[in-house]
Amino acid sequence: MNRVHRATRSRFQVLAFSFAAIFAVSLCSAANAAGPLASWNDGPTKTAILEFVAAVTEKSGKDYVPPEDRIATFDNDGTLWVEAPLYTQIMFAFDRVKAMAPDHPEWKDKPALEAVMDGDMKAVARAGKKGLVEILMITHAGMTTEEFAKAVSDWLASAEHPKLKRKYTDLTFQPMKELIAYLQDNDFKTYIVSGGGVEFMRPWAPGAYNIPPEQVIGSSVVTEFRMKDGKPMLVRQPKVFFIDDKEGKAIAIQKFIGRRPIASFGNADHDIPMIQWTLAGDRRRLGMIVHHTDAEREFAYDRKSIVGTLDKGIDRAQKGGWHLIDMAKDWKTVFAEQ
Amino acid sequence: MNRVHRATRSRFQVLAFSFAAIFAVSLCSAANAAGPLASWNDGPTKTAILEFVAAVTEKSGKDYVPPEDRIATFDNDGTLWVEAPLYTQIMFAFDRVKAMAPDHPEWKDKPALEAVMDGDMKAVARAGKKGLVEILMITHAGMTTEEFAKAVSDWLASAEHPKLKRKYTDLTFQPMKELIAYLQDNDFKTYIVSGGGVEFMRPWAPGAYNIPPEQVIGSSVVTEFRMKDGKPMLVRQPKVFFIDDKEGKAIAIQKFIGRRPIASFGNADHDIPMIQWTLAGDRRRLGMIVHHTDAEREFAYDRKSIVGTLDKGIDRAQKGGWHLIDMAKDWKTVFAEQ
Repeated sequence: MNRVHRATRSRFQVLAFSFAAIFAVSLCSAANAAGPLASWNDGPTKTAILEFVAAVTEKSGKDYVPPEDRIATFDNDGTLWVEAPLYTQIMFAFDRVKAMAPDHPEWKDKPALEAVMDGDMKAVARAGKKGLVEILMITHAGMTTEEFAKAVSDWLASAEHPKLKRKYTDLTFQPMKELIAYLQDNDFKTYIVSGGGVEFMRPWAPGAYNIPPEQVIGSSVVTEFRMKDGKPMLVRQPKVFFIDDKEGKAIAIQKFIGRRPIASFGNADHDIPMIQWTLAGDRRRLGMIVHHTDAEREFAYDRKSIVGTLDKGIDRAQKGGWHLIDMAKDWKTVFAEQ
Repeated sequence: MNRVHRATRSRFQVLAFSFAAIFAVSLCSAANAAGPLASWNDGPTKTAILEFVAAVTEKSGKDYVPPEDRIATFDNDGTLWVEAPLYTQIMFAFDRVKAMAPDHPEWKDKPALEAVMDGDMKAVARAGKKGLVEILMITHAGMTTEEFAKAVSDWLASAEHPKLKRKYTDLTFQPMKELIAYLQDNDFKTYIVSGGGVEFMRPWAPGAYNIPPEQVIGSSVVTEFRMKDGKPMLVRQPKVFFIDDKEGKAIAIQKFIGRRPIASFGNADHDIPMIQWTLAGDRRRLGMIVHHTDAEREFAYDRKSIVGTLDKGIDRAQKGGWHLIDMAKDWKTVFAEQ
């Protein structure tokens, strides 16, 4: 081997090494980009999540929590998917009134139902809470649990968000899905605890969030067990069984899970009791509130939306201990790519 | 190496091989003896369980069920532990009346409570269902969920079964514990679905059956969310929220789990709706009823006990499709060794 040869080999080696190094570095960046919380911008919120998870999973640390006690609860509407301008379940109920109306001429005498049929949202609003309950009961009861699940799935397959013009299941929040996956990878059991109907969520939530039906907790109507032609069925009744909202969220957590979560995520004042209940346990805890600050990509409604308030939540977060997730600042992307 | 040497080595090899073979065989027997369902006698019941599990877990078979749908539900009283002569929870309530009585002179005017204080079971029976509800509400409400859990644990640590003279948690059924473990080993999610109080079971059921609190479903009282000194608490109210019995068991399965079980185990007519609901699904299913036929080791009460009936259950099992577990014939041992 002459000197030229050696020099050439040497130069090739340097080049090869450089390529290898660059390749390794890009591999690392790729791993980071696709790693946990990839859609979260660096900042205090992301850091708070990473530090919390590191602390409760570090076996020799003072904040260690054994896997069976790693329970995390998530509100759904506004926390895991879009809730504005109206809860998706209400959009479903409105569409269902329209679809069912031809078979129910008697609905003409009911102002709330007529308002929905006419698409007159102001008149719907005038019908108030009583009108809304009437709409919900008529569209959510009188069928078996299987029939209702099918109605939900059928509707979601084609319905579109009025402003964002996408299917509702495409309006789940990518950063929150990554957070759920990250917690699951760290042996957390993740639950939905939502004011929404449990049987409205179960047909699609498992696919959207990788949370099984038995970990979806929500509001519900009374169901009746009946035998028909020797076969049992559960028939949904037009009567509220449980409202999983506000204080009801803490109550439901105890009734359904029987353990206190160590992390809770909400987006409105009605999530406060759930977060209070979570944070009141001993050991390290995490409470976070999604703050809708992103008029461009989603909605910005700060302390007051059509569907609720975040007054007390913001005040509490500002006092410390709770974290606000600033949608505009903290999230690289908002919606999950399908 | 001379021939003697070679012969010696050869003989040693034979011997070593024999030892290895014997050792392997004994290992296998040991594995069988300690294997699944070791406390079950061979017979049609054990075979039905083994065949069912083999069928639903055989990936290429026509009866294959994916792991996430392998849900099994168990009644508790009389199915997983002793229920005679009275439900353990009622024994707890009676002892609690006696313990609380000194602080409640006003109870003297209440016939049901006075009857318990006097240990006059005939008078308790005369007070009927109304009296029993009064006893349960007084002993099960008016404290936080944590305080109640502690009262249950404290009582179980010392209370003894009046006839069998063992702690109640030592009166769980070993064959049923093995069945739970066997199903879990085959990726089943095992649930308790009991008429008993959910907060009465959760303090000890996880330890006794290896079933986590969130998989214990039962009856419950209304709880109230209150803040005290800035700390949230859930206070048990003297008002029934849900009775997880009879048709309520099928209703609760849908409300809490949201999937239909593929296997259910009960011991009384009040478990029939749960088993009907289980068996009415498509694909292969298993429904079994523990029949208390063992006066010597436990109790024999056939179609009628103080706490319920098994009339319809036996009739249905005899018609086929459901299996009776004959405690005397099917179980080698009854109680779990502690």
